[in-house]
Amino acid sequence: MEHIASKAEDFSQWYTDVILKSELADYAPVRGCMVIRPYGYALWENMQARLDARIKATGHRNAYFPLFIPESFLRREAQHVEGFAPEVAWVTRAGSEDLAEPLVVRPTSETVIGYMYSKWIKSWRDLPVLINQWANVVRWEKTTRLFLRTSEFLWQEGHTCHRTAEEAEEETLRMLEVYRSFLTEDLAIPVIAGRKTEQEKFAGAVRTYSVEALMTDGRALQAGTSHNLGQNFAKVFDITFLDQDDQLKYVWQTSWGVSTRLIGGIIMVHGDERGLALPPRVAPTQVVIVPIMPPAARETVLAAARDVEARLAKVCRVEFDAREEYSPGWKFNEWELKGVPVRLEIGPRDIKAGHVVLVRRDTGEKTTAPMDGLERAVEDLLASVQNGLYERAKRFMDENTHRLENYDDFKAVMETKRGFVYAPWCGSQGCEATIKDETGATIRCIPLDASPASGTCIRCGSVTDLWVYFAKAY
Amino acid sequence: MEHIASKAEDFSQWYTDVILKSELADYAPVRGCMVIRPYGYALWENMQARLDARIKATGHRNAYFPLFIPESFLRREAQHVEGFAPEVAWVTRAGSEDLAEPLVVRPTSETVIGYMYSKWIKSWRDLPVLINQWANVVRWEKTTRLFLRTSEFLWQEGHTCHRTAEEAEEETLRMLEVYRSFLTEDLAIPVIAGRKTEQEKFAGAVRTYSVEALMTDGRALQAGTSHNLGQNFAKVFDITFLDQDDQLKYVWQTSWGVSTRLIGGIIMVHGDERGLALPPRVAPTQVVIVPIMPPAARETVLAAARDVEARLAKVCRVEFDAREEYSPGWKFNEWELKGVPVRLEIGPRDIKAGHVVLVRRDTGEKTTAPMDGLERAVEDLLASVQNGLYERAKRFMDENTHRLENYDDFKAVMETKRGFVYAPWCGSQGCEATIKDETGATIRCIPLDASPASGTCIRCGSVTDLWVYFAKAY
Repeated sequence: MEHIASKAEDFSQWYTDVILKSELADYAPVRGCMVIRPYGYALWENMQARLDARIKATGHRNAYFPLFIPESFLRREAQHVEGFAPEVAWVTRAGSEDLAEPLVVRPTSETVIGYMYSKWIKSWRDLPVLINQWANVVRWEKTTRLFLRTSEFLWQEGHTCHRTAEEAEEETLRMLEVYRSFLTEDLAIPVIAGRKTEQEKFAGAVRTYSVEALMTDGRALQAGTSHNLGQNFAKVFDITFLDQDDQLKYVWQTSWGVSTRLIGGIIMVHGDERGLALPPRVAPTQVVIVPIMPPAARETVLAAARDVEARLAKVCRVEFDAREEYSPGWKFNEWELKGVPVRLEIGPRDIKAGHVVLVRRDTGEKTTAPMDGLERAVEDLLASVQNGLYERAKRFMDENTHRLENYDDFKAVMETKRGFVYAPWCGSQGCEATIKDETGATIRCIPLDASPASGTCIRCGSVTDLWVYFAKAY
Repeated sequence: MEHIASKAEDFSQWYTDVILKSELADYAPVRGCMVIRPYGYALWENMQARLDARIKATGHRNAYFPLFIPESFLRREAQHVEGFAPEVAWVTRAGSEDLAEPLVVRPTSETVIGYMYSKWIKSWRDLPVLINQWANVVRWEKTTRLFLRTSEFLWQEGHTCHRTAEEAEEETLRMLEVYRSFLTEDLAIPVIAGRKTEQEKFAGAVRTYSVEALMTDGRALQAGTSHNLGQNFAKVFDITFLDQDDQLKYVWQTSWGVSTRLIGGIIMVHGDERGLALPPRVAPTQVVIVPIMPPAARETVLAAARDVEARLAKVCRVEFDAREEYSPGWKFNEWELKGVPVRLEIGPRDIKAGHVVLVRRDTGEKTTAPMDGLERAVEDLLASVQNGLYERAKRFMDENTHRLENYDDFKAVMETKRGFVYAPWCGSQGCEATIKDETGATIRCIPLDASPASGTCIRCGSVTDLWVYFAKAY
């Protein structure tokens, strides 16, 4: 069993150790890039499958747009280039020639997709356009961290066009809700859904919404964003349509995305001192069978375990760890490190008793389940682990969300245990900036739910109706 | 209905027209790059799902390696760099700084994956390593063509490590067979499987195998390749393992890939004057329902068609074209252009007769099928179209494969109807090069099947046992 740092003592080292030792990912030879290893990629594939189904169920179709974007495209939208230029990678040479116009390796695809939409869209009959793409993107980051902030990462980016401003706003909120339900139901991660401040919105958007999760070290993670782009890109890429009233109009757009950074969220929300704890719905292996084989019973146990494997393979993703060079105890540790939701132990005594032992990863609780009806018992247990992880994370988030109206308390929270602070804010960028400077906390979002009452701005004391979530964030 | 060029008169223009008008893909604003539109991407997703299942069924797992490769990596394997350097895109700047070492946008990933394998592999217990990745790659091509040769394309690349040379050769051939069965069974494309000559093999491989298909204009398309890399990359990236005999040894490697170029193959093998003809197993829409709606029967027909749609949705990918702004005839043409395998027509007379009309895309044959048992009839018809497309393509390939032993006949074939020429070859690179110069034909492969008899080299007349396939190729 490989050593990992203590989560309680060194969260950051624990995070890296868990990723490397569980073989989710590794460092690539290019600065800030990572390799997603088979175990990590299988997790991502399960996440993709679940989210892709949700994206398609809301009427979107996938497509693929080019990796390279002409420099001039990026420059057309003023805020967009300001936001992204500092972190793009430039292709300046191809084959043996220098390019007349450098190409940007896409940091996001609003511009090149906008250019194509201007070719494709002619009439109101062509709307809405509801397209998503799964792709790699590059943002040259100064400080990087596996999954959370890497120079290249994988994501999906949806890009839609609508006839009216109202439809675009509906779509923006619809996709925010898709992300909220995906996170809570599939990843067992509770979130706060809300709107970003002007300061924190996407470069080029009219309004940005996000779902914000709380990691177990008390820092927030922006887990997904949905942008109402208004007509900003439509105007610079001339995306127009002839409306039913015979007027030529600009379309209204949205874009929205989540990335492999969510894997970092899963690790930091559910993981513990033993390693990963993966939500059953997306875990590459949901049940691992570990046989207890004294030499005399070897054949009997192997046969019974294979039988169990065949039965469970029909209802879940099961793996049979038949390796004989490792002890059961060593295997227990390894599969706990890898976060497999349920361990099934089977030995000669269990066979005699007509049951197996089931151990759930989230609580460590051990039960026996009769062979008869085992499939159903395992399915129920997996659902229970999924729910248990969510409930634990929700409880943690609730316990670490502090409703405050006093700035000293705010600062004390940010200096010690962190978490979300839910507090009144006057709405000024000045207070927002000062709070960030003084405490390191940013406004994560203005929640969609109505504010509870009026209050006084936690920084300046002005009376305000606006309550927002603050946190130190990744 | 949009006009497409005549396939018989201008194959090349027909090819482009079909892609653009059926909305499979479009040109991107960057030279040589394409946009895969939703209809084309849905086709690719179905192809991916089928091939991915075959790749996983043979024990491989997916992973993701970085897009960027340090220049020095590419230079380590002499033949590899010679083969790829002329066509790579270089990232020389990131953010605001010039990079100390330029990065290559991966044209293929043997080098960076080799580097990672050298970190991961320690012992014979770690072998075999069987990893695949789905990714975008970039090769800066001088002349490009949608799907067939684009500067960026999507593909899968498998990279494996083995203990022995024999295991690596077995794996190379196993994946060639995976490609052969995927092409013939899922894409309905017959192929010739064989070994590439020294001249045509992959830059850095010991041996390259390929599957070669014949397009309906008589040109060959290399549809997939599987490389035995021997220890070439193991030696330059120091990928070693401690064997059971306690000796440190280099691993034996393979790599193999197919790409979005296969979509070009589907178009050119199955398409006809009316447009695409997609194999049912991978067609985004397998059955399109076109209602025949005289105004008086509108509601009755819509209700019956919706009922049929709901029933068929359980057994196939069905789409109901309920648009009222287009006539049935216009829709027939559009769905034929898009290559939907089966059209289902339903009108008041059909409803009265208790049947529907089914029209198959491959032959245009029209039949009626009773409402009772319709699901089964449609499933059978889809299987029949799949088979019909394969049989027609196989017949075309057989009829256009010329067994020749005379060079004048060879030249005449290449100047006129083209196709495969199966002929004896002495094995010299001189004859291979001369034939290419004089006729434009290359040796597509040395088939896996044993040669039928000895003969005399089609170019120089030397006695030889080697019969090979020649063709002009894409």
